[in-house]
Amino acid sequence: MLLKSKIDDLKKVLSKDKILFGEEERYCYAEDSANIRKETGIPDLVVFAETVEDVQQIVKYANIHNIPIISRGAGTNMVGSCVCMEGGIVLNFSRMNKILEFNPDDMTMKVQPGVVLADIKNMAESAGLFYPPDPANFKVSTIGGSIAQSSGGAKSFKYGTTKDYILSLKVVLADGTLLRLGSGTIKDAVGYHLNQLIIGSEGTLAIVVEAELKLIPKPESNALITAYFDSIETAVAGVNGIIRARIFPSTIDFMDKNAINTVEKFYPSGLKTDKECMLLIEVDGFASSIGTQLNRVEKALRENGASDIVSVFGKDDMEAVWTARRASYGATAKLAPDVVTDDLIVPRSSLSKMVCGCRDICKKHNLHVCIVGHVGDGNVHPQIALNLENDEEYKNLMDAKSEIYSLAISLGGTISAEHGIGIEKISYAEKILGNDVIEQMRKIKTLFDPTGILNPGKIFKM
Amino acid sequence: MLLKSKIDDLKKVLSKDKILFGEEERYCYAEDSANIRKETGIPDLVVFAETVEDVQQIVKYANIHNIPIISRGAGTNMVGSCVCMEGGIVLNFSRMNKILEFNPDDMTMKVQPGVVLADIKNMAESAGLFYPPDPANFKVSTIGGSIAQSSGGAKSFKYGTTKDYILSLKVVLADGTLLRLGSGTIKDAVGYHLNQLIIGSEGTLAIVVEAELKLIPKPESNALITAYFDSIETAVAGVNGIIRARIFPSTIDFMDKNAINTVEKFYPSGLKTDKECMLLIEVDGFASSIGTQLNRVEKALRENGASDIVSVFGKDDMEAVWTARRASYGATAKLAPDVVTDDLIVPRSSLSKMVCGCRDICKKHNLHVCIVGHVGDGNVHPQIALNLENDEEYKNLMDAKSEIYSLAISLGGTISAEHGIGIEKISYAEKILGNDVIEQMRKIKTLFDPTGILNPGKIFKM
Repeated sequence: MLLKSKIDDLKKVLSKDKILFGEEERYCYAEDSANIRKETGIPDLVVFAETVEDVQQIVKYANIHNIPIISRGAGTNMVGSCVCMEGGIVLNFSRMNKILEFNPDDMTMKVQPGVVLADIKNMAESAGLFYPPDPANFKVSTIGGSIAQSSGGAKSFKYGTTKDYILSLKVVLADGTLLRLGSGTIKDAVGYHLNQLIIGSEGTLAIVVEAELKLIPKPESNALITAYFDSIETAVAGVNGIIRARIFPSTIDFMDKNAINTVEKFYPSGLKTDKECMLLIEVDGFASSIGTQLNRVEKALRENGASDIVSVFGKDDMEAVWTARRASYGATAKLAPDVVTDDLIVPRSSLSKMVCGCRDICKKHNLHVCIVGHVGDGNVHPQIALNLENDEEYKNLMDAKSEIYSLAISLGGTISAEHGIGIEKISYAEKILGNDVIEQMRKIKTLFDPTGILNPGKIFKM
Repeated sequence: MLLKSKIDDLKKVLSKDKILFGEEERYCYAEDSANIRKETGIPDLVVFAETVEDVQQIVKYANIHNIPIISRGAGTNMVGSCVCMEGGIVLNFSRMNKILEFNPDDMTMKVQPGVVLADIKNMAESAGLFYPPDPANFKVSTIGGSIAQSSGGAKSFKYGTTKDYILSLKVVLADGTLLRLGSGTIKDAVGYHLNQLIIGSEGTLAIVVEAELKLIPKPESNALITAYFDSIETAVAGVNGIIRARIFPSTIDFMDKNAINTVEKFYPSGLKTDKECMLLIEVDGFASSIGTQLNRVEKALRENGASDIVSVFGKDDMEAVWTARRASYGATAKLAPDVVTDDLIVPRSSLSKMVCGCRDICKKHNLHVCIVGHVGDGNVHPQIALNLENDEEYKNLMDAKSEIYSLAISLGGTISAEHGIGIEKISYAEKILGNDVIEQMRKIKTLFDPTGILNPGKIFKM
């Protein structure tokens, strides 16, 4: 707990309306969207930064007095990256939410870290441009959080992840120094890619206070195909057939039988409940190419045993299908007091082994799992319904997770594709990365943050 | 100069046919493709590594005995990244040139560092896949060199650069430790992106001994439009018009009047010599979309005053146009004993100022400059013909470069888009990055390479 004298110091540094110190208020910022059972603390203070100078002042003070700083956007991350381990200051970016510059001709946008992704997407689209990363929570999550967690989304298969759209960053180091990393040009071969090191570092190396984004021309048209399969294997074979037909869908998403049935139980959407799994394939490009693409996708699906193949056109009808897909998490949450979602990725050739193995492991541990995912990438999101307060169920979950991670690794995959490590996956990250790589990361952490004030206890143990 | 005893040691470590130590042989590896006048040395030894273990053994020995190691692919870089400053060992990767794995269904390829880019491209295309980075020298340059220099090419505008196609790297650290960085999956959010730190580090942080590449489906069709303009401004306005028409060309290349005239003088190709500049715009995608794209590109060009707009179809006819564009360097080289090519990048909205300013600066210093570039990116390559042995011309070149770099920076750009820094641009890199960023890079260099044996004297001074 911070001493009152230090809180008084900070009140002198920042105006009072930028600080929350009531206990109830601080509790609101003690957790993020991770459903985990760990001993965590509550922040001593919540600070609403309004300027880069605010951030520098707070960090300088924290560095001298060894106070943890936990940067926070919308707090939507799933792995505990924003929780407080032992108090400290939550640095809230919700007031640094301005789009600072939009240059349609250069296809760039300069933003503060608290800007919500949907605002970036909408602004880009107003000029026929496109910011592709689309985590499921993009209507509330911030660009600062996206950068911290290296977030992806359904369109990453074709368009890549956050790291592919960051041209430059302004960051505050642990000693308060402000650095600009990268030049803001489309290409940059001047020295080490320090900005790429910050992306995905979960606020442990530096604090992002500004980002310059790369935009691309927005494809003028899109359409969706849905199809059902009798097995995971044939669905994956269908996806391979699509690639062989030289189609590059913007999204290839997946729902297994449990996910479909759970959605239909709570949010009836007209999905077929008697099949093993469903693919949702979105293609985009010039209007004149959409027919070609749909025909080839349909042919590849049909050749691999798909049934009930339906093409969906128009924004509203397509959105209805995506709403059903996204309803999976909420529907699963209705099965039990809690739902835990995970994030594995394997080479696509191992995808059916991953999905089937994940089901078998959950069955063995008496856990109800719905599986959705971005199957173009090989990215699987098991959603497990349970009561985290029940010790037996919790133990089963922990055992299942451990086995699921081992399976992902044995299949040439890894334990986080787009959610990060946070506190939830630390012990598994250590295993998969190995001592030598972790040691190199620790050295980099120490280089950037010698006193260890930046989001301590995340990604790996020091 | 290495002592004979150390050379004898190394002969014991490696079989004799992996080592060159004759003076004439060593001279062959003293330089790379940079045309610069600096005091550099010749290597004491050239070692042809054949295995990862060879690399580890050499590096371990060099680390203990403080011997510089200069990794070398095809030696095609333009900034002196492969030159020897004060002797040392050139570690040649031409024998580690195998494609180790090709997984068309996963769209990945695992390669040794000495594999030539053209071999990667051809292998990918044999399965309908595509490795987009295409530096002009891709028929001889290696993937190891591409990773070291973060290389781009004409298609970077749409498809990004080398950094966007590296899924994982195996690297040897300065103490001989072998690390795998990244997981080989399409997305990866497990810890810091150390592989992105290695890309573009010009062999100063670690030695890449294996890379896993991401491939994408190859667009099935393409076509080219060429057009001429009376001013740089209208050409740039034409490019902006193309983007506003929501076309995303794979390449938007540029030749100025001097470049066109010089090509026509030495390699007549039927280019129009009376216009201020020429755009070469390649579009790709589904065959059914090519007509749409060409129509919109032509409309945007015409609306901005383009003349002599010609569409070019078919591999051979398109290749003839690209051959004329690529002939610019060779043609300029015939104007004088030497040609020096440079690599600037600015936001596209500043492109005409960059091109015109570059010409004015060269004129002021009595230098003949042909300007080509990838104008979609804002990337400009001035090619300056001169006699480097002539002290006055050399001084003029140095003065002009300094002014050109200042101009790029003042226009919000930077001094290297895809060539790197090497030894040529060190003093300018220091200026543009600033002390704080350079200091952070120096710390990272020291962290990875405490004894400073890995390609010393490149990117920045220690």
